[in-house]
Amino acid sequence: MVRARPEVELDAWLRLKLTPGIGDASARKLLAAFGLPPTLFAQPRAALAAVVGPALAERLQAEPEGWRELCEQTRRWLAGDGRRQLLTLGDPDYPAELLQIEDPPLLLHLEGDLAALRHPLRLAMVGSRNPTAQGADHARQFARALAEAGACIVSGLALGIDGAAHEGALEAGGPTLALVGTGLDQVYPKKHQALAQRIAAQGALVSEYLLGTPPLAANFPKRNRLISGLSQGVLVVEAALQSGSLITARQAAEQGREVFAIPGSIHSPQSRGCHALIRQGAKLVESAADILEELRAQVPAATSGQETEPDETADPHDSVPGTASVPDDPLLRALGFEPCGLDALQARCGLDLPTLQARLLELEFDGWVVRLPGGVYQRRARG
Amino acid sequence: MVRARPEVELDAWLRLKLTPGIGDASARKLLAAFGLPPTLFAQPRAALAAVVGPALAERLQAEPEGWRELCEQTRRWLAGDGRRQLLTLGDPDYPAELLQIEDPPLLLHLEGDLAALRHPLRLAMVGSRNPTAQGADHARQFARALAEAGACIVSGLALGIDGAAHEGALEAGGPTLALVGTGLDQVYPKKHQALAQRIAAQGALVSEYLLGTPPLAANFPKRNRLISGLSQGVLVVEAALQSGSLITARQAAEQGREVFAIPGSIHSPQSRGCHALIRQGAKLVESAADILEELRAQVPAATSGQETEPDETADPHDSVPGTASVPDDPLLRALGFEPCGLDALQARCGLDLPTLQARLLELEFDGWVVRLPGGVYQRRARG
Repeated sequence: MVRARPEVELDAWLRLKLTPGIGDASARKLLAAFGLPPTLFAQPRAALAAVVGPALAERLQAEPEGWRELCEQTRRWLAGDGRRQLLTLGDPDYPAELLQIEDPPLLLHLEGDLAALRHPLRLAMVGSRNPTAQGADHARQFARALAEAGACIVSGLALGIDGAAHEGALEAGGPTLALVGTGLDQVYPKKHQALAQRIAAQGALVSEYLLGTPPLAANFPKRNRLISGLSQGVLVVEAALQSGSLITARQAAEQGREVFAIPGSIHSPQSRGCHALIRQGAKLVESAADILEELRAQVPAATSGQETEPDETADPHDSVPGTASVPDDPLLRALGFEPCGLDALQARCGLDLPTLQARLLELEFDGWVVRLPGGVYQRRARG
Repeated sequence: MVRARPEVELDAWLRLKLTPGIGDASARKLLAAFGLPPTLFAQPRAALAAVVGPALAERLQAEPEGWRELCEQTRRWLAGDGRRQLLTLGDPDYPAELLQIEDPPLLLHLEGDLAALRHPLRLAMVGSRNPTAQGADHARQFARALAEAGACIVSGLALGIDGAAHEGALEAGGPTLALVGTGLDQVYPKKHQALAQRIAAQGALVSEYLLGTPPLAANFPKRNRLISGLSQGVLVVEAALQSGSLITARQAAEQGREVFAIPGSIHSPQSRGCHALIRQGAKLVESAADILEELRAQVPAATSGQETEPDETADPHDSVPGTASVPDDPLLRALGFEPCGLDALQARCGLDLPTLQARLLELEFDGWVVRLPGGVYQRRARG
């Protein structure tokens, strides 16, 4: 596969993200149809129109306003600190967990340690921006205990529970991930400026929003899907009924993540949301140990402190006839060991759809890949 | 069926209960084999030995120590107040719900209003004898609200949560049932003397223990099965781990009763038991309304404020050929509309086993009775 020079590719991703009317869903459709953005933008209008209609095809052929400035700004931002990165949906470092959610972001800006994104035990902690004193203490204490036990605490940098959770993790010397709702050149709330710097130094700040994106009310609930999507479980520390934390918890459950909640007084409005979640099936927890026990039972690989790679050469008798050794196939590498949809796979390897499907079929016949329900493919641990 | 004079029958029940070595299980076996106690005691030793072995048969033929005094005492107690009764397993007023539990008591002493035993919506409330101030308030507040909504509160007259629950029900003017662990001529704890009197006046005190039975540690957990057995649900207000309330809750779940628990601070030892129950599937409740909603969904008949009798004559086309109208059968009357085991049925109607089984088979063929799994019979609502 011929790939464009990195800066050309980066510019094309930013252009795709910036094109008015092209949301992430349309963008994924285009990527699935044409491969990486530079190829996409080289298509004739008729080909684009066949995927997204004539109006959007026209917009795709015009340079979006502010694009060149954004490219400059993004390049400067990336160059400003060696710990800044832009991960695209086609990037091998893009978190596999996000490919499993309904609406994986096109881009992830990251400032800090990329390893925090791949930490084997990630637990989200969310809750009220106006917690009780007890609730804030719980957030800090649970985060500290969980970080001491080796978990990476994922939260949203908001006031209240979020901030206390990040603080607790940092106090324990653990990494922590902050999924923020603004561009990474902004810090919101301003009060968390110093906290954000400590998170970037000890863990990572992550945003799907373009540089310069101010705090917009609509972006925060959307950002919540990434908090749960990047975590194996979500702990709701304190939450009122009809609060954003309950939306995060619902999304977490829909994403197949475990939901935990801390109970409290039946007279505290800040506990009502937790009680509602428990009634709906969330696990009532009294201590960090309750959470670790549950998560370790679910993700045994995570407790070893490192990601596991199946040992494909362990038993030569298990190898498939005609494929003596594991093929060094770029498609298999792109697939990794997590289930992956066709569109994400296309975005990663840049093959056209018929070629991709033909290759997958071959690999399936040879026993290297299984097709799961819903058009999702997974590499087999052994051929 | 020829029945002994009431006082002769009463004496025979007390003798059966008092005979050393004859527990309730052996007693039920004897009743199943021979019918009512006067008949049982008229059996030759060999017949008794065939059921309970030679040693117990010998004991059954000797008058147990203190029996005549107990008969006198019980008669005096019954005569002392028109609201005192002794219900036996063979009595039509014996609560049908207790026949469904694993170990229904032979005798129930009752002081107060028999109607409280048949109240259509009975909810048990149990918990710590050393509750927090908040826990005691909850017990009183929930009991008051539930009684105002028409429920009869069932508890155990103990200090702490039990007492507060009875108080709350009485304050709301509702009936309340106290299942006590001593003979009804005793009050334990002494501190609840006045409370017991108010319960007897407005609801009922109930005990399976013979008059004169002092407070014995072993009897209180045993009594708990009646608290849950007589209730449609059990609310645990506050309970430490490894407390008697958790045993009651477990028994309630085994008896198919709904278990409810009030959450609290994760730092309160008195809430730990409730949290453990919620994790095991008890319903977390924040208000009396939560409980009523659940119970009314389960027992729709109970919400009408009166027991329902199926209308057997509603549709003449549904009648079974050859049985134009509902037979006025004493066995059907004894069966009632709750599922009932053979031994309880024998105790109620005094038929010998072969006769009883033959009659049941006839009724089953004619469509008046169904046999449920576990040798339990139930009258059908319509033939």
